Amino acid sequence: MEAKKVSQSRSIATQLVLPRDSNSRWGLYGGKLVDWIDSIGTVIAMRHCNKRVVTASIESLNFLSRINLGDIVMMDGWVNHTGNTSMEVEVKVDVEDWKTGEKRHACNAILTYVAIDDNGKPIEVPGLELTTDAEKKRWRAAEKRKKAKESCEE
Amino acid sequence: MEAKKVSQSRSIATQLVLPRDSNSRWGLYGGKLVDWIDSIGTVIAMRHCNKRVVTASIESLNFLSRINLGDIVMMDGWVNHTGNTSMEVEVKVDVEDWKTGEKRHACNAILTYVAIDDNGKPIEVPGLELTTDAEKKRWRAAEKRKKAKESCEE
Amino acid sequence: MEAKKVSQSRSIATQLVLPRDSNSRWGLYGGKLVDWIDSIGTVIAMRHCNKRVVTASIESLNFLSRINLGDIVMMDGWVNHTGNTSMEVEVKVDVEDWKTGEKRHACNAILTYVAIDDNGKPIEVPGLELTTDAEKKRWRAAEKRKKAKESCEE
Amino acid sequence: MEAKKVSQSRSIATQLVLPRDSNSRWGLYGGKLVDWIDSIGTVIAMRHCNKRVVTASIESLNFLSRINLGDIVMMDGWVNHTGNTSMEVEVKVDVEDWKTGEKRHACNAILTYVAIDDNGKPIEVPGLELTTDAEKKRWRAAEKRKKAKESCEE
Amino acid sequence: MEAKKVSQSRSIATQLVLPRDSNSRWGLYGGKLVDWIDSIGTVIAMRHCNKRVVTASIESLNFLSRINLGDIVMMDGWVNHTGNTSMEVEVKVDVEDWKTGEKRHACNAILTYVAIDDNGKPIEVPGLELTTDAEKKRWRAAEKRKKAKESCEE
Amino acid sequence: MEAKKVSQSRSIATQLVLPRDSNSRWGLYGGKLVDWIDSIGTVIAMRHCNKRVVTASIESLNFLSRINLGDIVMMDGWVNHTGNTSMEVEVKVDVEDWKTGEKRHACNAILTYVAIDDNGKPIEVPGLELTTDAEKKRWRAAEKRKKAKESCEE
Repeated sequence: MEAKKVSQSRSIATQLVLPRDSNSRWGLYGGKLVDWIDSIGTVIAMRHCNKRVVTASIESLNFLSRINLGDIVMMDGWVNHTGNTSMEVEVKVDVEDWKTGEKRHACNAILTYVAIDDNGKPIEVPGLELTTDAEKKRWRAAEKRKKAKESCEE
Repeated sequence: MEAKKVSQSRSIATQLVLPRDSNSRWGLYGGKLVDWIDSIGTVIAMRHCNKRVVTASIESLNFLSRINLGDIVMMDGWVNHTGNTSMEVEVKVDVEDWKTGEKRHACNAILTYVAIDDNGKPIEVPGLELTTDAEKKRWRAAEKRKKAKESCEE
Repeated sequence: MEAKKVSQSRSIATQLVLPRDSNSRWGLYGGKLVDWIDSIGTVIAMRHCNKRVVTASIESLNFLSRINLGDIVMMDGWVNHTGNTSMEVEVKVDVEDWKTGEKRHACNAILTYVAIDDNGKPIEVPGLELTTDAEKKRWRAAEKRKKAKESCEE
Repeated sequence: MEAKKVSQSRSIATQLVLPRDSNSRWGLYGGKLVDWIDSIGTVIAMRHCNKRVVTASIESLNFLSRINLGDIVMMDGWVNHTGNTSMEVEVKVDVEDWKTGEKRHACNAILTYVAIDDNGKPIEVPGLELTTDAEKKRWRAAEKRKKAKESCEE
Repeated sequence: MEAKKVSQSRSIATQLVLPRDSNSRWGLYGGKLVDWIDSIGTVIAMRHCNKRVVTASIESLNFLSRINLGDIVMMDGWVNHTGNTSMEVEVKVDVEDWKTGEKRHACNAILTYVAIDDNGKPIEVPGLELTTDAEKKRWRAAEKRKKAKESCEE
Repeated sequence: MEAKKVSQSRSIATQLVLPRDSNSRWGLYGGKLVDWIDSIGTVIAMRHCNKRVVTASIESLNFLSRINLGDIVMMDGWVNHTGNTSMEVEVKVDVEDWKTGEKRHACNAILTYVAIDDNGKPIEVPGLELTTDAEKKRWRAAEKRKKAKESCEE
C-alpha cells in the first residue's frame, strides 16, 4: 500500500453556533463541539485510508477559549501519525469574531481512528509521507505521546 | 467603505452524512442539505460585511446527484455580487466517495443575504473587488439573473 | 393514469418556533424553515402521485417577514404544474401572532419534485385537473417560469 | 371575556416520518410523536386564549397502530372543554399510506393546557361556544373524565 | 417464565436542560420531557422482559413544577404491574436546583408498554414478584386504575 | 468551604440508542456518546460544587466496545480529584444487551471541569473527602496523570 501525503487528507469544516448548539450560558456546549470535531476527524481518517473508520480514542481535547452564540467556528485537521491500522488525527479549532474578523485559538484535539473492513475488523492503512519539518515534528510528538500514554497506563 | 476581494470571504464546509440527516430511502434529506448550505452561506456573507445577516431569498437550488448515507459532503462558497445592502452568495456542493476519493458535483445553490444593524434594519455592505475573469463572469451572470428575475416577476 | 385535482393533494402544516429552531437573534433560522417547507412539499408531491419522490430543485424561496421565537407558523401548499415525471409545488408560509391572532405572509416557496420507482428512476406522475381560475393561472405562471428559467440558463 | 367557537382554534399539522424520528425497529418513536402532539396542542390552546400556555397534563394517549418510516402523519386537534384557566385539547392522529392514500387512526390524545400571564401565573381563558352535537358530546365526556379522574385520585 | 423483582428493572436517568430542550419561555419543553420519560420507560420495560417493547399508552402524566434551563432533571422509574404481555411503568421526575442541591417533584408519569416478538406480535412477559408494601400498594393502585379506565371508556 | 464526599455527587444516566444517535454502520456515533458523557460529567461537577461549570478538557476517552442501535447505555460517574477551581470527573460507560441483560464495559472517560462565577471567572470548589480505598487510589492516579500530562506537554 502506497504511503499518502498529509495534504491529501487535510480537511476544513466551518460551523455557525446556533441556539440548538449552545449551553445554558449561551456559549457553545462542549458535547456539541466534540460532535463537530469527531465528524471532521472521521472525514480526515476516511480520506487518508479510503476505508470505513471508527473512533478509537480521544487522546486529549483542551477547551482554550469560550465560544459564543453566533460565532463562526473553523476546524482544520490533518493526520499526525499512522500505525498498522490506526491513524492519529489532530484538529485545531479557531473561533472568528464576525465583527472584526479576528480569530483566536479555541480548542485543540487529538483523536485516534481505526480503519475497519466490512466485518468491523481492523484493516491496514497507508503510511504517511512526511514532506515538511512541521509534519516530521508532529510525527515525533505523536510517537512520544504514545510512549508517555503507555507509561501512564502501566 | 472599502471593497473586499472575493477570496476574503470564500469559505469551505465539510459534513458527514449520518442517519439523523437522511431521508427514508437513506439518501441525504433535501431539507437538511439546505440547512447546511444556508449555514455556510451565512458565514460567507458575515465574513464579507462583518455584520449580522439574514437570508433574504434562495434564487435557485438544484439537486444534481443523489447523496448517500456515509458520504462526505463538501461545500465551497463565495460572494458573486453585492448591492447596497445585499450579497448574492453561490455555494457549490460536491460529494466524495470515501472508497475511491472520487468527487461529483451534487448541488448548486444561489442565495441572497441582507446585512442588518442591531435594530434589524438593512445596512450598507462593502463592494466586491473583482480580480479574476471567473469572478467578473459571475458578477455579470448575477446581474443578468437579477434582470431575468425582475422580468419573470412582472 | 388518471389526472388528479389540486384539492386532492393540498396540505397544511403547523409548527411552533422553539429555541431549537431559532437563529442567534431569536428569529426562525432560515435553514430550519426550508426544512419544514421541504417536508410539507414532499407530502404534497407524494399525495399527488402516490409514489416516492425526491426534491429536484428549489425554483425560488423568498423570506418576506421575520418569524420570531414563539410564533405559530402555518404552511399551506399545493401542486402548481405537472410534467411527465415532475411536479411543481408551491408553499405559502404565514406567521400568526398568538396575542392577536393576526396573520402575515412570511415566505413563499416554489419547489420541483420528481417521482421515482424502487430503483430510484424517474417514473410517470398523474396530470393535474384544473378546476378553478386560480389553478389555471398558476399553471400558466409555472409554464412561463419554466421558459424563463430555460432562457436564463442558456 | 367572550366565548370562542371550537372551529376558531381547530388546527391541523402534517409530518413526514424521517429516520431522525424513528425507533430502532423503524417505526415512529413514541417520544417523538408526543413531541409533535404537544406542539400542535400548544398551538390550539394558544389560538383559543391568545395567551401563552403551558402543558399541565396528558390525560390519556393511546397508540393504536404502528407508524412506519416514510409514512405521512396527520394531526387534527380541537378544544374539548374549558375551565377558568385551563383548556382540554384532543388530538386525533391518522397515518396515511403514501402508496394507496389510505388512512388509519393511529393515536388519540387528550391533554390539558393552562394559560399563563407574563409572570407565569394562571390567567382566565375564554369559554367555549358549543355549536354542534359532537362538540356538546365532547364537552360532556370531558366533564365525566374530570370526575372519574378525581375519583381515581382519591 | 419466572417472575422478576421490581428492583431488577428499576432505572435512573439524569439529564441537563439545554436550550435545545427548552420552550420559548426558557422552561423545559413538555414534548421533550415526555421524550426523555418514554426513553427511560422503554429501558425499564426492556429490562423487565428482555424483549423488544412498544409504548402502548400514556395513562397519565402530570407536570407539577416548572423546570428551567440549566436545571438537572432526574428520572427514577419502575414496573408497577404486569399483565400477560403488558407492563405498567411509573416514572417519577425530580428537578434539582444546582445552587442548593434542593430537589422538588416536577412530574409523575404512568405508561404502559407491550412486549413484542420479531414479527411485532405481543409476547408474554414475566410476572412481578412483589417484595415490599410499597410495591404491593402500587400493584393494587394499578389494578384499580385499569378498572377505572375501563369504566371511563364505557 | 467544607469538603464533600465522592458519594454526594456520584450520578447515573441511562440512554437508549435510537437511529438519531447512530453512525452510518448503525453503531452509536462517537460524537453523540461524548455529548452524553459531557452531559452527565457536567451534572456531577455541578453537584460537587453547587456552581456553574465549564468543560476544560477531556484527559482521555477510550472506546472499548461497539455499541449498537437499540442497546441500553449506562453511564456511572464520580469526582476523582479536585484542585482549587477544577474537578476531575471519571465516567464509566457500560452497554447492556436487552436480550440477556449482560453488561460489558464500552467506554471510559476522564474529563476536567472548572467552576465559574456569574462573570465566567474560575471560582473555588470544595475539596474531596476520601472514604474508601478505591477513592484514595483514584485520587493518586489523578495526581500521577497530572504530572505525566505536564511532562508530556514539556
